[in-house]
This record gives sequence, C-alpha cells and structure tokens, in this order.
Amino acid sequence: MLHDNLSVGENGHLYLCGADTVTLAEKYGTPLYLLDEDRIREKCRTYHRAMKAYFTPDSRPLYASKALSFRGIYRIAREEGMAVDVVSPGELYTALSAGMDAADICFHGNAKTEADIRYAIDAGVGLFAADSTVELDRISAYAVQRGITQRVLLRITPGIDPHTFDAVNTGKVDSKFGSAIVTGQAEEIFCYARALPGVELCGFHCHIGSQIFDEKPFCDAADMMLTFMIALRDTYGYTAEILNLGGGIGVRYTEEDPYIDIDRTLELVGAHLHAVCEETHYPMPKILMEPGRSLVADAGVTVYEVQNVKTIDGYKSYAAIDGGMTDNPRYALYRSRYTVVNASRASAPADFVCTVAGRCCESGDLIGEDIALARPACGEYLAVLVTGAYNYAMSSNYNCIAKPPIVLIAGGVDRLAVRRETFEEMTACQL
Amino acid sequence: MLHDNLSVGENGHLYLCGADTVTLAEKYGTPLYLLDEDRIREKCRTYHRAMKAYFTPDSRPLYASKALSFRGIYRIAREEGMAVDVVSPGELYTALSAGMDAADICFHGNAKTEADIRYAIDAGVGLFAADSTVELDRISAYAVQRGITQRVLLRITPGIDPHTFDAVNTGKVDSKFGSAIVTGQAEEIFCYARALPGVELCGFHCHIGSQIFDEKPFCDAADMMLTFMIALRDTYGYTAEILNLGGGIGVRYTEEDPYIDIDRTLELVGAHLHAVCEETHYPMPKILMEPGRSLVADAGVTVYEVQNVKTIDGYKSYAAIDGGMTDNPRYALYRSRYTVVNASRASAPADFVCTVAGRCCESGDLIGEDIALARPACGEYLAVLVTGAYNYAMSSNYNCIAKPPIVLIAGGVDRLAVRRETFEEMTACQL
Repeated sequence: MLHDNLSVGENGHLYLCGADTVTLAEKYGTPLYLLDEDRIREKCRTYHRAMKAYFTPDSRPLYASKALSFRGIYRIAREEGMAVDVVSPGELYTALSAGMDAADICFHGNAKTEADIRYAIDAGVGLFAADSTVELDRISAYAVQRGITQRVLLRITPGIDPHTFDAVNTGKVDSKFGSAIVTGQAEEIFCYARALPGVELCGFHCHIGSQIFDEKPFCDAADMMLTFMIALRDTYGYTAEILNLGGGIGVRYTEEDPYIDIDRTLELVGAHLHAVCEETHYPMPKILMEPGRSLVADAGVTVYEVQNVKTIDGYKSYAAIDGGMTDNPRYALYRSRYTVVNASRASAPADFVCTVAGRCCESGDLIGEDIALARPACGEYLAVLVTGAYNYAMSSNYNCIAKPPIVLIAGGVDRLAVRRETFEEMTACQL
Repeated sequence: MLHDNLSVGENGHLYLCGADTVTLAEKYGTPLYLLDEDRIREKCRTYHRAMKAYFTPDSRPLYASKALSFRGIYRIAREEGMAVDVVSPGELYTALSAGMDAADICFHGNAKTEADIRYAIDAGVGLFAADSTVELDRISAYAVQRGITQRVLLRITPGIDPHTFDAVNTGKVDSKFGSAIVTGQAEEIFCYARALPGVELCGFHCHIGSQIFDEKPFCDAADMMLTFMIALRDTYGYTAEILNLGGGIGVRYTEEDPYIDIDRTLELVGAHLHAVCEETHYPMPKILMEPGRSLVADAGVTVYEVQNVKTIDGYKSYAAIDGGMTDNPRYALYRSRYTVVNASRASAPADFVCTVAGRCCESGDLIGEDIALARPACGEYLAVLVTGAYNYAMSSNYNCIAKPPIVLIAGGVDRLAVRRETFEEMTACQL
C-alpha cells in the first residue's frame, strides 16, 4: 500500500492503522474523515528529536495548524510538546480553547487586522511573524499601550524556488508575503523594526514552498537567510536569536511521489547549517520549522459511499460519491492527484479507470480523473488516501452540504473528534 | 459604473442601490456581503413575465439556489412566486425552513443518496430531476412504499457546447450528469423510467453551461431536446409535459463582458420553440428555466478593509484585504475576473495596478491580478463587484476564518439577513 499505516483485512476491507474503514463508515456514516492519531504523534516526535539533535537543543517544530485545525489536533500537539503556528484569530481561539499555552504560539499572516493583533497580544502569543511595516506599527502601538514588549520575527522572502521545474528562480520574490532580500526591502524592514518601541526583534522567518522532497531547497534557503543575517551583523551589529525555516517537507499522495526520510533530511539541513555558521563565525541560531502537511496528511483517509457508477459509451466512466469538493477541494483548486481505493474490496485488482465525481451540481466537482480502482458497485465505499491535510481545513458548505465528522484512531480504538454538522448548525447565522 | 445599481456619492463613496457601502462597512464590519434586494426581485419578475409571455402561461422560472442559498433569499423567491431548484437535502431544509412550499421545489443532483431521496419524498417535493437508473430505482421503491406517485424529469445531456471558443462540441456528452442522447443512453433511461411503478415521467431537463450571452445555445439545446422528444413520441407515443432548459444566462463581471437583455433573449428562445413545435406538430411543452447566477450575481458587492499595500521594487504591487478565498474562492478555482473599486474614493482615477491578495496563508489566495483601482491606503475599503453568486455559497472556514454576514438592501434600507459567524459557532462540532 501507499503508506505503512494502510493494510487489507481478511474480509478484503481497507484498514487504517488496524481499524476497518468499512466498519467505521457504517458506524459514523459517510463522508467520513479518519485520522491515524498514532502516526501524527510519531511524526511530532520525529521532528522534535531530529531538530534537537541536528540543529540546537532549543530548536523546535511548530505545527502549522492551517493544514488541519480542530481542538483535538491542538490537544495532540500540546501533549507532544509542539509549539503551534496560527494564521488567524480563529485558529488562535481554537488552539487556546484546546489548552495550548499562548507562549507556544506564533501568529502568522500577510493581512493581520488591528483587531487580530490586539486579540493575539491580549492572549499573550509568544511570537508574531510580522509581514509589513503597517503590522509592526500596530504591534508596537498596542504593546506600548499595554506596557509590554512583543517578540517578533520578520517574514523574509529569500528568492528561492524549491521546484527545479519552475524556470523563474526569483518567482518567490514576487509574493504577497514578506519582504524580499534582493530588493533591499528586507533590510529596510529590519531597520524599521529595530527602531520601534514595544517590539523585540528575535530573528527571521522564511517559507519557500511545499511538496519538497530533499534537503537542497532548505539548505539554499538557509544560505540566503544566513548571508542576509551575516550582512546585518556586519553592518548593524545585530545577531539573530531565531531562524524560522518554515515548512514544506513533501508528502507521498500517489505511487509516483517519492518517499522522504524526515529525520535524514533534517540531519542534512542541520549539518549544512552548522558548517555555514562555523565558517562564518555566526552563532548557530535556534531553528524553528513549521511542518503542517507532513505531520498530518498521510494520517488521513476519507471514506465515501458510492452513489452511482456509469460508463458513457465511447467516452469514459464515472463513479459518483456522496462527498467531493465540499470536503476536499484540492482537485478543483490545484488538480492535486490522489490515490483512491475501493475500501469494500481493497485486494481486488484496480482495473477500472474512471473519474471520481463529487455530488455538487458543478462539473468541476471531481476528486480525480483517470483513477484506477476495483470497479465499485453502488453502496460500496471508496477511500481517498492521504487526506489529512487541507481537506477538513478547506471544507465548505457549498450546495448546503454539511461538514463531515473526524474520527481519531489511536491504538486501534476510534473516537469522534469532530461531530457531523447538522442543518440547524449550518444555517444558525441565517435570520 | 459596471451596473446601474452602482453609483458614487458626493462624499466619493461607492453606493449600492442608494446605500453608502462605506457606511455599511463601518456599521457591520468587514468582510461584508451586500445584496441589492430590489434588483433580485426585479430580475425574478423579468423572468416570470417573459416566460409566461413568450413560452406558455404555465411556464415558470426556478431559482437555482446553489448560487446563493440562505433563508432570506428563499423568502424573496417565495414572495416573487418563484419555484426553486435545490441540489441537496441541506438546500431543501433551508428552503422549507424559509416557508417554501415543497411542491414548488425541484430536487437536482448527480449523486442523491437513499437518505436524500427519502427526505425529499417525505417533504413532498414537486419534482426530481433524476440522473440515473439507480436514483430512479430508489425513488420508485420509496414512492411505492409510501403509496405515492413521484413526478420526475430525466436529466439529459444534449451534446451542446455553449462556448464557441471550445473546439469539442461533444464535450458536454462527457459529463458526470445525466444521460446522453447521442449514445442512446437517454432513450434507455426513458424506457427504464416509464416502466417503473410509483414514478410519473413528466419530461426532460438539460443544462448546457454558464455565462451564455445570447439565445443561440438555448435554441440549439432546444432543437436537440425537441428532436429527441419527437423521436420518443414517434416511437413510443410519449408526449412530454415539461421541458426544463436549465440555467446559464451570463452576467457582466467586468467591462469586457457584454450586457445581456434577459427579456429579449427569452423572447427569441420562445419564438424559436414555438416555430419548431408548430412545424413538428409537437404540443408546446411547459418550459422551466433555472436562473441562479443571473438572478443574484450583480445584486452583490463584497466590501473589505485594506490591511496593507506594498510595491515590490521591479516586480509588482499588492493590496492585502481582510478576506479573500474564504469568502470568494472563484479566482483561486477558475481565475474568474472581477471588478474592484476603492469604495472610499470611488471617483478617483483607477490608476494603480495591483494584485488584490486575500488574508489566507496561501499564495493562491487572490481576488485578482492586474486590477486597476484608485491606490488604496491602509484602512480604506475595497468593493469587489458582482459577488452575489457563488461567493457566500462557496465560502469556507479555511484558516479558521469566520463567514461574513449578508446585509440586504431594499428601498435604500439595510437589514441583516445572515449574522457574522462567531468562533464558538465555527468550532461547535469540535469535541
């Protein structure tokens, strides 16, 4: 199978970390998000251990909770000693309501409002990743008013493109996020931040992209950032305490995607960082990283019931399911590829090629095209694999479709973490 | 301005049907959906009047509520004598909870579940637009069990592509929806439906696409459908009571889009239908149409507060707002073009070209690129025009961002129709 938390039972059903996905679909109804809690905890520990061992003892992973945000996942993060990255007051609210310590939270975003900033400062967030001088002004003014000093990082765009197939290396300079090194704007905002009262500049943040499968883009980004930081030291005598390298470690969605060894990748990045710092006599900063997708994606499976299967003579075949772009808009948005399994007959040959179509009244509501799976019958269950990240997080109520529940599986035991939304709840704001 | 419900006040603010968008933004907060109720009612009346005058006296528009579904809009539809098209039990629930008569509701969808069908039959929906033999079997079995006869249309794919720039005319045959005429599957499902107990076949439904700006695609579709219906009459002696031509009349989003005269378009379609029916001695069927976008889109304006404006030297400029793909995912999904106005200084020259970026931590969260507007300052309001359709309907809580409120404006008076979602409501299902 695609990942080692997936298996086929003697009954031919697809199992996720020892739990029968068909049994769970019958118990909780469909569509249904399943989440392998053990795997998420194991990934948290891998990041923790590797970052302490290969970077510095105080280096730390922050869970980038935009990938999948609900109370239960913040509880897991907290129990595993993770810090957390939030991008909105809603994520901050959810994290706090799950018992996260605000000091362990870093607040991101390119368009934080005045109200967001006040809410976050009042809550006592440990760090802001500040994106602009406007934001710095707002943080400074409110911190001064409150009589505190707010720790901030500056979001910097190093101008690295992690994908070799993208010709324009400077593409990342043109970003809605942060300040570019190459234009001089990163240095300007550094000077601006240092001069502000109520703000303590602790270092820098960068994020180079997603679905990165080797260490090189991280090493390149670290080089750009360290070169920038060394220049600041030499010019302004400023030494950064923190370097936040963001997220981006890749996830295997289909057989065509490679595997990545997270521990080994971080070991190589760490060796590179230590070598550059030694060579330039720069004190090795505390490293933060922000895994989101790579922590939760392959822990997730979505189960749907098949509603119809049709073959249009001379054209192609469709399998229609009881969910779709409302619970997983990634094919509609990005043409993201997924692996789909007939969960009811998971060991049968995958010899039926079809479009898996969602239930929305919209042609673009597809989970994927040219998908090979054992020919499903109406009433059988389909499992879409690797849906832990950016599925529930991006879900909508398009077509007035209620959001599915999330069931966590730990030690083979399932428990409801998010209830299925009711129609009353879905329309509660409508007067 | 783009539409005649927009104007600029003496204070330089953008007005929607006589209401100051800046005043409303300050009153209700941002992001904020505004909706010109008068315009929606006027459009309902145009469709009503034209369909009765040009088609048959019992012809009728159904509001395709997937474009924008909330209680208040169903109340308006009901008051205007509209029938309604729903595509899920959630839309059906919402329509019924707003006082719609179930007999005036047609239930659509390519993947209706057993539970959906039972819910709709129990509610007494007037029509199903049945998509497959599986669905027909389910309707038949439950109707027989309940001792009723359920009226149904069959969804047919006529094989028309409404867009001349799309080379493959048969593209529409390859659809997740319905049964194609050209493959013979439409005739098969017709025979299947007629033989089923508990089901009364009332006619046929087709939907050829969206953003259609002239009558020709509708006339072409009507030709295909009538040719099919005439063949069924000649072979099986069946005469259809209803022909549902679906929706698709276009909307002007930008200055590049044409205007369309709905009344004149329906007059031309009606003349064509009457001519073909007379020529073939087919009794003119009752015509249903399903306007969604064309009823509500240009009634809507979304107002945002500008959070940051930046120019990346040598690259381009960005204006960051306090909403984005969570309240309007259409640029992220389809690269849909919008017109954006600096609502605070709506008469100032639109000489600042920028990317309007949303607040999500995602590069693709943009409202548009290469947008010209008066250079906004932080704290000014931007209005995105023509957002009445597929904005609130497709909104998500990505990044844990709460859904904005909807304010209806009628006779110059504003009233809240959908409250802003609270964080407590947004996380209510999370245990």
